[in-house]
Amino acid sequence: MASSFKRLLIGKPIATEHQHHERLSNVTALAVFSSDALSSVAYATEAILAVLILGGSAALGLALPVGIGIGVLLVVVAFSYRQTIRAYPKGGGGYIVARENLGDLPGLVAAGALLVDYVLTVAVSISAGVAAITSLGVTWGFPEIKTYAVELGLFFIAVVTIANLRGVKESGAIFAVPTYAFITSILMMIAYALVRDMIFGPTLVVHSIAPEIPMEGEAIGFWLVMRAFAAGCTALTGIEAISDGVPAFKSPESKNASTTLTWMVGLLVSMFIGITYLANVHGAVPNELSHETVVSQIARTIFGTGPIYFIIQITTALILVLAANTAFADFPRLASFLSRDRFLPRQFSSRGDRLVFSNGILALGTFSALLVIVFQANEIAMLPLYAIGVFISFTLSQAGMVKRHLRIKEEGWRRGMIINGMGATLTAVVLIVLTVTKFTHGAWVVLVLIPILVTFFQGIHKHYLGVAEQLSLSTAAKPIPVRRLTAIVLVSGVHKGVLSALELGKSLAPDNVTAVYVDLDPEHIERVKSRWAEWGSDVPLVILESPYRSLITPLMNYIDEIEGRYRDGHVMVILPEFIPYNWWEHLLHNQTGLILRTALTFRKGKTVISVPYKLEQK
Amino acid sequence: MASSFKRLLIGKPIATEHQHHERLSNVTALAVFSSDALSSVAYATEAILAVLILGGSAALGLALPVGIGIGVLLVVVAFSYRQTIRAYPKGGGGYIVARENLGDLPGLVAAGALLVDYVLTVAVSISAGVAAITSLGVTWGFPEIKTYAVELGLFFIAVVTIANLRGVKESGAIFAVPTYAFITSILMMIAYALVRDMIFGPTLVVHSIAPEIPMEGEAIGFWLVMRAFAAGCTALTGIEAISDGVPAFKSPESKNASTTLTWMVGLLVSMFIGITYLANVHGAVPNELSHETVVSQIARTIFGTGPIYFIIQITTALILVLAANTAFADFPRLASFLSRDRFLPRQFSSRGDRLVFSNGILALGTFSALLVIVFQANEIAMLPLYAIGVFISFTLSQAGMVKRHLRIKEEGWRRGMIINGMGATLTAVVLIVLTVTKFTHGAWVVLVLIPILVTFFQGIHKHYLGVAEQLSLSTAAKPIPVRRLTAIVLVSGVHKGVLSALELGKSLAPDNVTAVYVDLDPEHIERVKSRWAEWGSDVPLVILESPYRSLITPLMNYIDEIEGRYRDGHVMVILPEFIPYNWWEHLLHNQTGLILRTALTFRKGKTVISVPYKLEQK
Repeated sequence: MASSFKRLLIGKPIATEHQHHERLSNVTALAVFSSDALSSVAYATEAILAVLILGGSAALGLALPVGIGIGVLLVVVAFSYRQTIRAYPKGGGGYIVARENLGDLPGLVAAGALLVDYVLTVAVSISAGVAAITSLGVTWGFPEIKTYAVELGLFFIAVVTIANLRGVKESGAIFAVPTYAFITSILMMIAYALVRDMIFGPTLVVHSIAPEIPMEGEAIGFWLVMRAFAAGCTALTGIEAISDGVPAFKSPESKNASTTLTWMVGLLVSMFIGITYLANVHGAVPNELSHETVVSQIARTIFGTGPIYFIIQITTALILVLAANTAFADFPRLASFLSRDRFLPRQFSSRGDRLVFSNGILALGTFSALLVIVFQANEIAMLPLYAIGVFISFTLSQAGMVKRHLRIKEEGWRRGMIINGMGATLTAVVLIVLTVTKFTHGAWVVLVLIPILVTFFQGIHKHYLGVAEQLSLSTAAKPIPVRRLTAIVLVSGVHKGVLSALELGKSLAPDNVTAVYVDLDPEHIERVKSRWAEWGSDVPLVILESPYRSLITPLMNYIDEIEGRYRDGHVMVILPEFIPYNWWEHLLHNQTGLILRTALTFRKGKTVISVPYKLEQK
Repeated sequence: MASSFKRLLIGKPIATEHQHHERLSNVTALAVFSSDALSSVAYATEAILAVLILGGSAALGLALPVGIGIGVLLVVVAFSYRQTIRAYPKGGGGYIVARENLGDLPGLVAAGALLVDYVLTVAVSISAGVAAITSLGVTWGFPEIKTYAVELGLFFIAVVTIANLRGVKESGAIFAVPTYAFITSILMMIAYALVRDMIFGPTLVVHSIAPEIPMEGEAIGFWLVMRAFAAGCTALTGIEAISDGVPAFKSPESKNASTTLTWMVGLLVSMFIGITYLANVHGAVPNELSHETVVSQIARTIFGTGPIYFIIQITTALILVLAANTAFADFPRLASFLSRDRFLPRQFSSRGDRLVFSNGILALGTFSALLVIVFQANEIAMLPLYAIGVFISFTLSQAGMVKRHLRIKEEGWRRGMIINGMGATLTAVVLIVLTVTKFTHGAWVVLVLIPILVTFFQGIHKHYLGVAEQLSLSTAAKPIPVRRLTAIVLVSGVHKGVLSALELGKSLAPDNVTAVYVDLDPEHIERVKSRWAEWGSDVPLVILESPYRSLITPLMNYIDEIEGRYRDGHVMVILPEFIPYNWWEHLLHNQTGLILRTALTFRKGKTVISVPYKLEQK
């Protein structure tokens, strides 16, 4: 029953041979790899404004210079990543680059940071997507939809999780249509607004509920600007996606990937700065009371609340869901790398029925759903935790590239080193800014979590190495052949269920088989003895007393005693188990078989032979 | 760790030989067996008044005649039970008497009704005990205590459950002191109040918050009186306790038990009618607003709010907790009878470490805790469900006695038959009254639950009979000795953990042992083959392909094939399992051993040999 439900939900299993690696054209690759990066324009501007508004309305004008600063940072990081793409045509994620060039510990720090960030990507993107939909609801007169934000978020996470468990092909129209629709609608909106504003002058946003702008705000100064800058850095999340996925490009892979990265950053910077500019000009500000997003405010002020506004909101929601979907490819892949290198439980590296890393997908779905519940699907509240992980990974990965240039000294390595060095320095500075400005707003959680994760990875690694060492044949002697077999048949009474176990015992250890019965109820002993005389096939029956009505203790003592007697032999415990017809009928029987088997194999390290006796339906 | 917590909570195990049956003097027996019956005076009067108040203040005067009617019923039922005590000196609970004389079905109905009622006894008594304490709190200026009623109730249930798991000796001061303190304080209160009222005239109750008495109430007529009578019938619960426990009395058991029963009913009737009279005279009425019990109102009006009032409230609370404790003896005992007769899972008949029926105790604790939560510890709201079960059991048990007299025709059987016939008829009539008046107030739940329970008992019975029949040796042929042994060793790789399994396989089936490896990753095959050549001890290795990366399916198919090949033989599957040092390390490994063992033994009915390889701490 559980099995058919699973089939219905995720589909039939797929054979290993059907694993294929489709090569993507640059146009499709842009759609597949950029949804995470591009979708951040849906909330990055709002994140900047949400900080600046604390300085009062006069501070809002700083959004554009801050935005331009972030744009510059984006370009530098993109250049730096072009180096990585060239150096790692098989894919160079932060974990791989940092571990290969800087060592295990930096690699694990990058990995831990990225895993945390992938979980946040899902939670933030899904929550922002829900915000796009609820903003539409608020504008169109269904404000009640706001109260279902968490439920909507969990629904989307469930849909994306199931889709990924089925195996989403990273290709085709599924990605291209919403991504290009989003790019087109945002760029068109910016272009139309620029022209319209030039002719008619800008119209100001009319709020359904007036936003709260402090009259006497914080001092407008360096600190406020730094915080606004840190908030906007969420625009950089996802920029590393192309460097992870170089092998998916058509040949020449590195060149195509570099070109696509350039395009992506160009589009991202244009849209981000465009929206930030429009927000300033039209007076769009974060509005906690109406729960309407900044993008929604701009879109309806420019186009009215008609179909174009509708398309913008829906494509925004769609690309945000796709961005979450990207993390569903990245997290399980990174987890499988860690698992392959024995830093995570090996279950993360086995492919499920549908050839996907099911355990990683389920883990990501669970953690992100928890975040959505804890933060009540409020993406702006989650942002202080976000981006820290990405910048840790940026810094480590680019520092690793610097080390690599120094080590390999390939052609043009000096230029490459300067580019990566600039990237590493800049992202390190930003990382410090992020840490300082966001620390008390929640970033400390991430900074505590990462060392915990790293310790966890190392503990697992130590365990696996220990196991491998103990299982290694290099230290093994040829085992001594088994010399003398002793069989002990545990009987719970004299009935049909024990007969075949008894025969097996006689056959396995003809000279050395004993049956053992634990006396839990002295009244039955005589009957057991007389029936044994008839049915016991000449196997001697040992009756053990149990003053405390325990089954386990007397048996364990007896087996220890027997083993002490035959030091040269191999003691096997034969356990007749009767198997009910329906699983629930197990509840009607004492689970002695299970308890004994666990105690004997796991606690005592004994060889246990289960001889089942199947019952029919009656 | 779990084990030492258990030891701390319930104590060291007790040996079977220490099971003892203390004989009780009549004075102690009265304390041990009567707490359930006597404690009902704490709420029975209030239950009557809670109905009559619906007819307005004029109707309250009907409480005394209704109470006298219930007193008469009590005396008749008590006489009837004296017959049962004489006929069943080994204890004659409703289940035993009904099943022996009327057949399985009536016996099971009585059993189901009693189990339900025992759960209600705990929930009602504990809630009423909590009400006595919160009434004290209200009077003494801590009204906040009311809001912790549910928590207090759950705490008391936990205490009684743990005390019973430790094994409470049904004897001595634990029972005698609170029971006699309760009896003394209530009787003294009644006596003092009668004298005082004669001299000074009665003082009326002053309510902290005026109770709600409807001005235009329901019509005062037959229907209202019947409902009040039904409500008061809760006073009869627990009266059967002595007849269950005859063997605990000193010789002559039946005579002593009869005498004690007479005393108990005498005390019960006096206290119940006394309190009902005092409530009427002093104007005590149920007060839902102040949450103060009727007994508390009477006590503080007579004695003021000083130490005597305190003693009355505390002894009331204590005897109510003891009443719950009675059910903790009755429920597990009845469940063990049902289990012994194969109508309940056999786990209910095994005695735990402390010689008590632990599973029955835990079941009762759980169910009654749920009821306290659902009803928010409001005992008056639970009363409509209560008593129905007891009256079903009364009627069936006494009808059974009538049948017995007719069958055995012992000396004086005609007189006995008339007494039991009267008892049966009267309780049957009351049962109809209870059903009709309480049906829509919740009694339907009980009347739906009992047939469900009976069906459940019968289903379990059928299962156990089927198992016994299949295990029976009466139809068994002497089993054919095992002729040809085939061993299949499942290997997950070539490492130390499989060597001893391989040796065992060679030793068990020297001519017919094969190793099987499932190819989940084609890259490793060549290495596995070459290492096998070195370490495989000349056992042939079969490599199975698995296109869908499943371990189970190819193995199952292979085993089926082998089995088809050797029809005359016994196929054993040898499973090398490596056992981590710490239990949590299991999480780091695929649970293939467990999954394979379950699939092979339970689904396929194969003999499985687990050969453990214990890992050390590294």
